[in-house]
Amino acid sequence: MRAEIIAIGAELLGAQRTDTNSLYLAGELADLGIPLQRKAVLPDDVRELAACLAAACRRAEVVICTGGLGPTEDDRTVAAAARALRLPLVLDPRAERRLRLRVHRRGRRLYAADLRQTLRLQPARWLANRVGSALGQWCPTARGCLILLPGPPGELQPMFAAQVRPRLRRLAPPAALASRVLSVTGLPESEVDRRAAPLYRRVANPSTTILAVATPHVELHFRARATTRQRAQVLADTLARRVERRLGKAVFSREGHSLAEVVGAALAARGQTVAVAESCTGGALAAALTDEPGSSLFFRGGVVCYSNDLKVTLAGVEPSALAAQGAVSAVIARQLARGARQRLGADWGVGITGIAGPGGARRHKPVGTVFIGLCGPASPARARRYRFFGERGMIRRGAVQAALNLLRQHLD
Amino acid sequence: MRAEIIAIGAELLGAQRTDTNSLYLAGELADLGIPLQRKAVLPDDVRELAACLAAACRRAEVVICTGGLGPTEDDRTVAAAARALRLPLVLDPRAERRLRLRVHRRGRRLYAADLRQTLRLQPARWLANRVGSALGQWCPTARGCLILLPGPPGELQPMFAAQVRPRLRRLAPPAALASRVLSVTGLPESEVDRRAAPLYRRVANPSTTILAVATPHVELHFRARATTRQRAQVLADTLARRVERRLGKAVFSREGHSLAEVVGAALAARGQTVAVAESCTGGALAAALTDEPGSSLFFRGGVVCYSNDLKVTLAGVEPSALAAQGAVSAVIARQLARGARQRLGADWGVGITGIAGPGGARRHKPVGTVFIGLCGPASPARARRYRFFGERGMIRRGAVQAALNLLRQHLD
Repeated sequence: MRAEIIAIGAELLGAQRTDTNSLYLAGELADLGIPLQRKAVLPDDVRELAACLAAACRRAEVVICTGGLGPTEDDRTVAAAARALRLPLVLDPRAERRLRLRVHRRGRRLYAADLRQTLRLQPARWLANRVGSALGQWCPTARGCLILLPGPPGELQPMFAAQVRPRLRRLAPPAALASRVLSVTGLPESEVDRRAAPLYRRVANPSTTILAVATPHVELHFRARATTRQRAQVLADTLARRVERRLGKAVFSREGHSLAEVVGAALAARGQTVAVAESCTGGALAAALTDEPGSSLFFRGGVVCYSNDLKVTLAGVEPSALAAQGAVSAVIARQLARGARQRLGADWGVGITGIAGPGGARRHKPVGTVFIGLCGPASPARARRYRFFGERGMIRRGAVQAALNLLRQHLD
Repeated sequence: MRAEIIAIGAELLGAQRTDTNSLYLAGELADLGIPLQRKAVLPDDVRELAACLAAACRRAEVVICTGGLGPTEDDRTVAAAARALRLPLVLDPRAERRLRLRVHRRGRRLYAADLRQTLRLQPARWLANRVGSALGQWCPTARGCLILLPGPPGELQPMFAAQVRPRLRRLAPPAALASRVLSVTGLPESEVDRRAAPLYRRVANPSTTILAVATPHVELHFRARATTRQRAQVLADTLARRVERRLGKAVFSREGHSLAEVVGAALAARGQTVAVAESCTGGALAAALTDEPGSSLFFRGGVVCYSNDLKVTLAGVEPSALAAQGAVSAVIARQLARGARQRLGADWGVGITGIAGPGGARRHKPVGTVFIGLCGPASPARARRYRFFGERGMIRRGAVQAALNLLRQHLD
């Protein structure tokens, strides 16, 4: 059993609007255990639409159409569906009475065009709309059903929840779903896939998808189905564990958490705090650490010392070290980490200094060179050199992620 | 001449991710005068994909495919295109050399799977990728062309702009286009539309679209077409100017710049600098100011004083004022601004203190209450009270945007 979604409306083909209904429907279908196989967006052209609907109804058991059910000239979904399925349309007197009543209550007049909304595919059942005037339709097809829903999310969602979901549940194979997400950092997507592919490649259940969330953050999604939720979870977890063994410490979450959340939780669990001193990331590390609620538990504060004199006055960097090694160096990263820890009174200090570009490259220090320093309660400050690629934003995000990961590994 | 877009990737059929590339491409196609007729999202199944590609190439002159060009098991776009167009694939030795060089430079190994990225549709031309490893392809078809682009927007957009747009311009009907973008802050999208709609509603050329970029940042795009570029620009600018008169000082850019860019340029033009002291935004204001290259010209640095004692030691806030008024107050916002300016040696100081939530609400200070202080070279520090709505991230972004806007208005 499989589903397709067709979103109708010229406005969805412009540069501004995206089809958000399909996200809601995709989630609902996944919960029902009906895989979504295709989405399409079409303008309100009857001929095109009819061809697309006919093809979808040949391929899929469940075809959901959104939009084009209103009273205006460009609402042509019902006409297209009639043509696609070669079904007659009937004017429904009950629907007309309902519409007259509704229009009357609002003190408006009924126009002839409004009656388009009372045209029903002959074998279809109405889906009531408690919010707007456009009715939905549930029409049997040779393979399953065609479901016509109104475009506005505020009308579509309650209609689906109350009238479509229960009907689909009766059609869908009895199955429970469960998923597991592994979040990985420090490895490129291709390397994650090289290690994971031999394990998931020939496995259809659980299904596996690899998603590059941000440059240094890759997620593996495992979705399993079984007769009970518990069995599905065991299936997903078993494959995830096997993949995790291949990825080692690069996996930082099994629950879809961000790296900052994982670091925050580890600090909070130890009752420890962190402070940061940032140069090239300009506050982005502090912003990431304070993105989640409750960060005051583990985050003391930070200094953004973009200029060299502020590195001295705010973070206690030694002017002689700046002169000897330059601001982008391991020694300065260490001194920034130490300064953040001591001056802001935290258990851990992190220092970042680097060249985010596009300008600023030096001999042996190309754009993307970043030093990250870490200073903890037990051992002296240390620093690592990194090289990030891409434009300024990617380099900055890469440095923030690497700093969080460095701290995470020392908290493990 | 008409276009279709096919986005490939199982993750785009889930409940989480939507295909944003097609919005960018729709805008570009509109600029070229090529109407977009259909969008589809498909999983990485070669047979399905090939059928969909073949049908699209029969219907449309321009077919753009995004995603599925990488080195992993589920990257199957090229294979599907070969099957759809019945074209042979060739391993390209030049592309292989380029890939080896790239992998070598990053200190990684080349795996056999990586070589999938050097498979070219025989009659196609490569589209170079300056950011990632996956190459694009431009392949002639019976009706026009099939264009294969990589999925990550950071790779797709520069590739389109540099290599696809000029080629399509040669194919597209001759018409000159021009556009004007008004960027607005401090007004909700509905209010912007209420003021602008009477002016643009019945005007087809220029076309107008309203885009909510972020909570407090709305863009109005005016796109005009005419026989010459100059005439088109006059059309777009005339309508934009009429709309701008209705929006007043809420318009901060006519060139599509970000608020941070506008503020940075205004500071740089005056030869002045800014420093910040942040509490609830946790470094996000500093990060926004340093997002663009060249920020060292106008940005001195910042302190993130998340805890009360750091407000005292880092930003010179008076403990008595903290005790009397609480950390979330106008007096503390002023003292933070003054402290940032004086201690970091800048011409302007900005201070932010507030309740980003979800916890922390007090009597008369609900979640979303934020005070922003500003201290300049000429007058004493002042502060304004704001109220932002939504979840933590929206409140923080709103506060950053409001702080930038406050500074902008004083630089005008």
